[in-house]
Amino acid sequence: MEHPENSKEYKGLQVNGGVEQPSIVNPYLKRGRFHHNELSAADMVDGILKGNVTILSQAVTLVESVNPDHHAKAQEVIEKCLPYSGNSIRVGISGVPGAGKSTSIDEFGIHVLKGHGGKLAVLAIDPSSERTKGSILGDKTRMEKLAQHPDSFIRPSPTAGSLGGVARKTRETIILCEAGGFDKIFVETVGVGQSETACHSMVDFFLLIQLAGTGDELQGIKRGIMEISDGIVINKCDGNNVDKCHMAASNFRNALHFFPRSESGWMPKVLCYSGFYGKGIKEIWDMVYEYVDFVKDNGYFQYRRNEQNKYWMYESINEHLRDSFYNSDVIQRQLKMAEKSVLGGEKTSFAAANDLVETYFQEIKK
Amino acid sequence: MEHPENSKEYKGLQVNGGVEQPSIVNPYLKRGRFHHNELSAADMVDGILKGNVTILSQAVTLVESVNPDHHAKAQEVIEKCLPYSGNSIRVGISGVPGAGKSTSIDEFGIHVLKGHGGKLAVLAIDPSSERTKGSILGDKTRMEKLAQHPDSFIRPSPTAGSLGGVARKTRETIILCEAGGFDKIFVETVGVGQSETACHSMVDFFLLIQLAGTGDELQGIKRGIMEISDGIVINKCDGNNVDKCHMAASNFRNALHFFPRSESGWMPKVLCYSGFYGKGIKEIWDMVYEYVDFVKDNGYFQYRRNEQNKYWMYESINEHLRDSFYNSDVIQRQLKMAEKSVLGGEKTSFAAANDLVETYFQEIKK
Repeated sequence: MEHPENSKEYKGLQVNGGVEQPSIVNPYLKRGRFHHNELSAADMVDGILKGNVTILSQAVTLVESVNPDHHAKAQEVIEKCLPYSGNSIRVGISGVPGAGKSTSIDEFGIHVLKGHGGKLAVLAIDPSSERTKGSILGDKTRMEKLAQHPDSFIRPSPTAGSLGGVARKTRETIILCEAGGFDKIFVETVGVGQSETACHSMVDFFLLIQLAGTGDELQGIKRGIMEISDGIVINKCDGNNVDKCHMAASNFRNALHFFPRSESGWMPKVLCYSGFYGKGIKEIWDMVYEYVDFVKDNGYFQYRRNEQNKYWMYESINEHLRDSFYNSDVIQRQLKMAEKSVLGGEKTSFAAANDLVETYFQEIKK
Repeated sequence: MEHPENSKEYKGLQVNGGVEQPSIVNPYLKRGRFHHNELSAADMVDGILKGNVTILSQAVTLVESVNPDHHAKAQEVIEKCLPYSGNSIRVGISGVPGAGKSTSIDEFGIHVLKGHGGKLAVLAIDPSSERTKGSILGDKTRMEKLAQHPDSFIRPSPTAGSLGGVARKTRETIILCEAGGFDKIFVETVGVGQSETACHSMVDFFLLIQLAGTGDELQGIKRGIMEISDGIVINKCDGNNVDKCHMAASNFRNALHFFPRSESGWMPKVLCYSGFYGKGIKEIWDMVYEYVDFVKDNGYFQYRRNEQNKYWMYESINEHLRDSFYNSDVIQRQLKMAEKSVLGGEKTSFAAANDLVETYFQEIKK
């Protein structure tokens, strides 16, 4: 049975734009009847480099596949795309649920494509998407303008279990998109858990969408997120809400003085806008481009990308080591007991850790 | 040759109070002629439980020893003290260099001993102390009132290399001190690097000492530290500086609204004081005790201690795993190359990590 996407391709149809569905709903993938291997890795790379979005989306599906058989081919495609990646501006976009992320990204995307040309890929990191079947980007109607734009590529969050897995796949997808000529990458993330940190570690600029509230604007937001933001933008600055937004902006600006200056030397800006009415969007993207000029000028841009590359290597090593430990049979049997003896005051945390690690190494050396 | 501390002990001399010198300057320890094994582990525990401070400090020196021969005995002493530990209030005290930490701790300590009785141990976490020979607590004249107080025990930071090692030793020292009847523990830390996080993870209350500055009070301080503080106190609120301090306090209070409410349900307070003139000290400790009542009441006190115990177990496991990996010969040989190939765009971070981990496991299974 032929894959419907492949057959379109064979007829020479180019499917630019449109929202990719999460791979979890792809029945071919689930049943192991995934026919993307009809294209060789080299053919895939060739198609991606030529800007074929259908092939790009097949490659992304391959990267996201949980089938171990696809792994080697996926890595081959990524490795071959790697030399062609990197030529983009990567922007992370975060905000609490209800902040209007989708409408905003729709407006941002259209503005950026109109004002700066090029091609835009919108990706996401949402480790909860497996459970919720995609709490972000799952619904194509949420970015309807972008979804119809010929130079956009919208892809929901990969649905692998762990944040590490999801982040890896999103990061590999960035490589494929960049090789495919996408010179603007948005990475959307929800404002919960550790996903912003992961998102922040793969973008050049981190944009936080806020709402004007009752003076406790940040009560709903995760600790530390203001500190990693390069720009804070307050949405829904329209109608009766304008004064409240300007007040909130001024409060945020004051609060920013209480954060240490970021490593880049950039002082984060606070702006108001209305995603719904499309007002104040230009100023936001002027800020992003101003930032990019600023950090390209002082060398921080490339420095940060190098640091991110190293970060992901070390993060990935540590995750492998932890996985091997915590997934080993002997540790799974003994961990709860060890925790109990620590909480019961029979062993110190350090002694319990020592014992477990010793047991683990004895086991794997067997 | 007999250890001078031992000989005092044999003559029945009790050395209460006084500042312990960093163990790094103890020549016996360095030359492996460390005669503390004249006391058995059981005798040490017995001495500690009886409140013998000389034996307590010998036990701490044993815990801090880098000599592997001392390790088993140290662990035995700690384990035997463990059931007698936990009955204290642990307060972390941090602040940038120049904030007046030592003078403040001196005043705080005297106030707490006077107002609440009991015994006070002042410990420290300063991973830089090996390099700088103790940048904090190295100079006994800096806490001269406490140093002469019979119910105090002042101990400089352990001088082991890594933060993990230093933190472990400080945490084990807390156990020994608590078993020795010290019901108030101060853990001093410098406002740099990761030491505050480590300190925060072993105390009940985290106090941040600040100065009133030029509106950018926090520019010198590490990211995230305001968010983990249960109380922020502004020092040098005296003379011409009073108005500036009150202004700074009000700014800090406003800024705190921009931080998410802490897990404990406690809203951090901001107070002004003068360490030098001993003004406003009572209010600070009323706050600490108010906090302790608050979290004992809502159950967070014990919850947090349990979480800390688990945290250190898992942290310690992860550190062991990382150490084993990064110290292995094969990784030491290959790591720089791997980093280079990632930075050169030849391999993705994930592929490089995979290769290294595979090599490592092959090696240790040999």
